[in-house]
Amino acid sequence: MPRVKRTRHQVVDRALALAGVVGLENVTLGVLAADLALSKSGLFAHFRSKEALQLAVLAEAVERFTATVVAPALTQPRGEPRVRALFEHHLAWVRAGGGDGDAAAQHRCIFMALSQEYDDRPGEVRDALVRSQRDWRAALAHAARLAVGEGHFRADLDVDQFAFELVGIAMTYQQSYKLLADERATAFAHAAFDGLLARAAPRRRAR
Amino acid sequence: MPRVKRTRHQVVDRALALAGVVGLENVTLGVLAADLALSKSGLFAHFRSKEALQLAVLAEAVERFTATVVAPALTQPRGEPRVRALFEHHLAWVRAGGGDGDAAAQHRCIFMALSQEYDDRPGEVRDALVRSQRDWRAALAHAARLAVGEGHFRADLDVDQFAFELVGIAMTYQQSYKLLADERATAFAHAAFDGLLARAAPRRRAR
Repeated sequence: MPRVKRTRHQVVDRALALAGVVGLENVTLGVLAADLALSKSGLFAHFRSKEALQLAVLAEAVERFTATVVAPALTQPRGEPRVRALFEHHLAWVRAGGGDGDAAAQHRCIFMALSQEYDDRPGEVRDALVRSQRDWRAALAHAARLAVGEGHFRADLDVDQFAFELVGIAMTYQQSYKLLADERATAFAHAAFDGLLARAAPRRRAR
Repeated sequence: MPRVKRTRHQVVDRALALAGVVGLENVTLGVLAADLALSKSGLFAHFRSKEALQLAVLAEAVERFTATVVAPALTQPRGEPRVRALFEHHLAWVRAGGGDGDAAAQHRCIFMALSQEYDDRPGEVRDALVRSQRDWRAALAHAARLAVGEGHFRADLDVDQFAFELVGIAMTYQQSYKLLADERATAFAHAAFDGLLARAAPRRRAR
């Protein structure tokens, strides 16, 4: 049983790397079998359908994102430090192309690529993707809400608006850093984040 | 000759619509020939390679973007009104999925999808895409620079930073509006834009 499990994990790993290159929609059981030099029937023992494979890949990506972006930030104190840690780890994720171990094989942030790939394709994969992105927005909004509680952010901050803008910075960052190879990309992202924090800061009383 | 030209345009139109659904990388001469019920050799008369086809599709998308986003904004007065018009027309483009006439056939903003598709695929298509996105950033930065000249924005505004942030708002907007079907997406985008304008505004003297 452990052997089978490890093999399944290896298959998902490889499928995730492939999805980062050719798009998840193009990672079929046939493509993956050819890539891994496995029989299609062998793969079929792990995944009953292309959709099941794609859901497993997405679940793996969510697990990695949680482990490399969310979990380290949770070790930071509540409030602004944790919000900043979420942001910084997210930028690092974008730079690495998403993923930890085999980053070399993965070039694109799987979630951003999937957002483009699936925004008009109803089905279970799209539903899981929507869930993952809503969860990420909710995690950012929650971190902002804690910062309000700590007095780091102003009491009337719209935390969903905050999450919307934070996600936007990471998305342009990806385009600037990867596609445009803009040397100022990281500086732009930090300045935008500082602007966002300044607007979230408690208002000083008029003197 | 006019007939051939019209046909070529129709082919590019259809290829652009297809690219919005399956991704430009998947719009091969074979796929397109099957879709249009044309012979591959007939298509080959218009496009000598898949790459030539893809470049034509991208050029058509740039032309449409210019006609539906940039050109109408240029009728607005220089300065903040023109910057706002560029932003609003861009949001409308995102809502329509990019394109004007046959929007129904096109679901994704072709440029954002391509940014994901090509960010790690060197070649002429990627180069053309990078050029189109740099041009768009430069157009936004130029509009911001004119707004500085008009006294609408502060003299020390980093106009490239401004363009970076503006693009980020449109990117999250797309994810929020299309993938997440968030009812507040448009309100979020406007609030983020107002925040960006407020930070660009000339500083008032201390009283």
